[in-house]
Amino acid sequence: MKDFVFYNPTQIVFGEGKTSEIGKYLQGKKCLFLYGSGSIKRNGIYDRVVESLKKHDVKFVEKSGVKPNPVLSFVYEAIDTARKEQVDCILAVGGGSVIDTAKAVAAGFYYNGDVWDFFVDKAKITKALPIYVVLTLSATASEMNSGAVITNESTKQKFNIQAVSLFPKVSILDPTNTYTVPHNQVANGSVDAIVHLLEGYFTKSYPNTPIQDGFVETLVKTIIATTKKILENPKDYDARANFMWSATLALNGLTTAGIGNYEFPNHMMGHSLSALYDIAHGASLSIVFPAWLKYNESNISKRLASFGKAVFGKTNSKDTITAFEEYFNEIGAPIRLKEVNIDKADIDKIAENAVSLATKWGLKTYTKEVIAKILELAA
Amino acid sequence: MKDFVFYNPTQIVFGEGKTSEIGKYLQGKKCLFLYGSGSIKRNGIYDRVVESLKKHDVKFVEKSGVKPNPVLSFVYEAIDTARKEQVDCILAVGGGSVIDTAKAVAAGFYYNGDVWDFFVDKAKITKALPIYVVLTLSATASEMNSGAVITNESTKQKFNIQAVSLFPKVSILDPTNTYTVPHNQVANGSVDAIVHLLEGYFTKSYPNTPIQDGFVETLVKTIIATTKKILENPKDYDARANFMWSATLALNGLTTAGIGNYEFPNHMMGHSLSALYDIAHGASLSIVFPAWLKYNESNISKRLASFGKAVFGKTNSKDTITAFEEYFNEIGAPIRLKEVNIDKADIDKIAENAVSLATKWGLKTYTKEVIAKILELAA
Repeated sequence: MKDFVFYNPTQIVFGEGKTSEIGKYLQGKKCLFLYGSGSIKRNGIYDRVVESLKKHDVKFVEKSGVKPNPVLSFVYEAIDTARKEQVDCILAVGGGSVIDTAKAVAAGFYYNGDVWDFFVDKAKITKALPIYVVLTLSATASEMNSGAVITNESTKQKFNIQAVSLFPKVSILDPTNTYTVPHNQVANGSVDAIVHLLEGYFTKSYPNTPIQDGFVETLVKTIIATTKKILENPKDYDARANFMWSATLALNGLTTAGIGNYEFPNHMMGHSLSALYDIAHGASLSIVFPAWLKYNESNISKRLASFGKAVFGKTNSKDTITAFEEYFNEIGAPIRLKEVNIDKADIDKIAENAVSLATKWGLKTYTKEVIAKILELAA
Repeated sequence: MKDFVFYNPTQIVFGEGKTSEIGKYLQGKKCLFLYGSGSIKRNGIYDRVVESLKKHDVKFVEKSGVKPNPVLSFVYEAIDTARKEQVDCILAVGGGSVIDTAKAVAAGFYYNGDVWDFFVDKAKITKALPIYVVLTLSATASEMNSGAVITNESTKQKFNIQAVSLFPKVSILDPTNTYTVPHNQVANGSVDAIVHLLEGYFTKSYPNTPIQDGFVETLVKTIIATTKKILENPKDYDARANFMWSATLALNGLTTAGIGNYEFPNHMMGHSLSALYDIAHGASLSIVFPAWLKYNESNISKRLASFGKAVFGKTNSKDTITAFEEYFNEIGAPIRLKEVNIDKADIDKIAENAVSLATKWGLKTYTKEVIAKILELAA
């Protein structure tokens, strides 16, 4: 085991009906209530949240319209609103996009400069508004970690921040809130959570990590099994619940604690696809990940085989990669660039964009040429 | 998945040499420095802690002499010292006994009545001194949970408390601190951690828990494998490290979140053996657990078989129970009452004592007769 610090103070309140308890947990007098396109108004979540806030005398100001691949311009607007309305906390009702927006706003609220400074390492986050979450889409684990990813539309950069003050105080995980999540978003969430787990699993620097390996294999197996069940029966409570908790545990620090250095190359490349073409994060990963595995197969063949045995019942690295592609196919996630209408001729442009994030993340082996070679395997 | 609340704000600082950083993490001006028999003076841990406290200008008053199966009279004394010296935090350097004592003192410090009131549910813990830990013995997971167990010598009761304010703020987990832990204590810790994991695994009320099952199986496998390595080579860093983190994760709330109601019948019976005969906690469990499995075999045979397959490579419940006994034997942990010189004739007396804890914990099926029957299987 390699040295690590593990700290995760987010309180998880898990179960059917817990949405109606959000007001009880919210330690604030007036919150900025962030949400997305308004699906929460159609499925009743909005009403349950508002009722609970009123019951517990929490005032709120609404700001809706957060989009997938959330953008910086919206963050600016929301910071303005938060300041004008003098809120003392943020309530994010949604998935990763809404929660990540909440985190950027929470950090920007107290900062006099441009909030983008935090993303390009020009400034450090030292203080943030307290964040509360009602999760409606399982994928990013933002509900139980301290990171956020925002796209700067003008620079075409999808960059991240991370700070202890960005851990949500309380996150409500009510599996029934995800009953109406459409198939393609379930698939995207499934891919995202799996790749979160496997970035560390396949790139870690420390060899002997039986605890983390077992946890990752357990979670990937559970995610694959429950995704299939959800796609068959969207109201399978147990499947939704196990999927939800797995996705949260997939990036809350648990499975990477002690594995040494690790990298996020698939996210690095996927973020460029999303920044340039606005394709869903999960879809970008289902395209990039098999290609990345193929490019690295000779270096990680033993590990691919042992993972394949534990999760897919396969015995060698090639079959394991095929099993991933078959699984992604089965759930309707794209595995080639052309499936999302990206032309092979664009690879150079994508690689160019990806390199800036590779540099920010210190991924030195990922030159423009290497990235292009990997993307060609997805063509 | 069953509804749950998961909250664990303890910060874990893991790695070789981290003991020397304790002063940096300690947010207090004067702490009560608790430790055991003084082994920390012989192996150098004491010097490293004191040096770090001095470096960071943290004053301290020492109180040593915490014993295994820590007692209430010592807690009283330590509360007196803490008040007299006006400390503002507690530093526990030791294993579960020292940490549990720290928790009882932390809670008692602010309470005007008898601290034992908390143990017999006459009063609720609402406030406690902040607790910091340097772990020297892996077993109880007290370094990352909110519970504590203390023995009242006059009433012969080994009872527990639990409160959010009792989570340690920071726990240093430095595997090299356990290099000098003697074989029998390694074995006891191994048994304790395994039974922590399996009490929930075999008594849970909710059926479909693939995440928690996989985590438990991973941790038990890791504990068994690393215990054997440690007994062969006490300075095997990786074995000590994996054992240490496994034991912490074994009772920090992770593996029981979502499994519904569960019981601690083996701890209930084990606590009586320790309260009456002052035998080590782990030894009490290695005696009681196989007997409990035998008593319940017909009810949990499927689950015993699937656990046996995952962990021991066995295919039926009987072989799984035998595998436990063989493992306990191999590491020198007792599996029969006579091995710790407890006479079969005492079973009635032990059952009588155990029933009071069964009542406190709401274990209604554990009448005196049932407990006696189980203990007879350990005779």
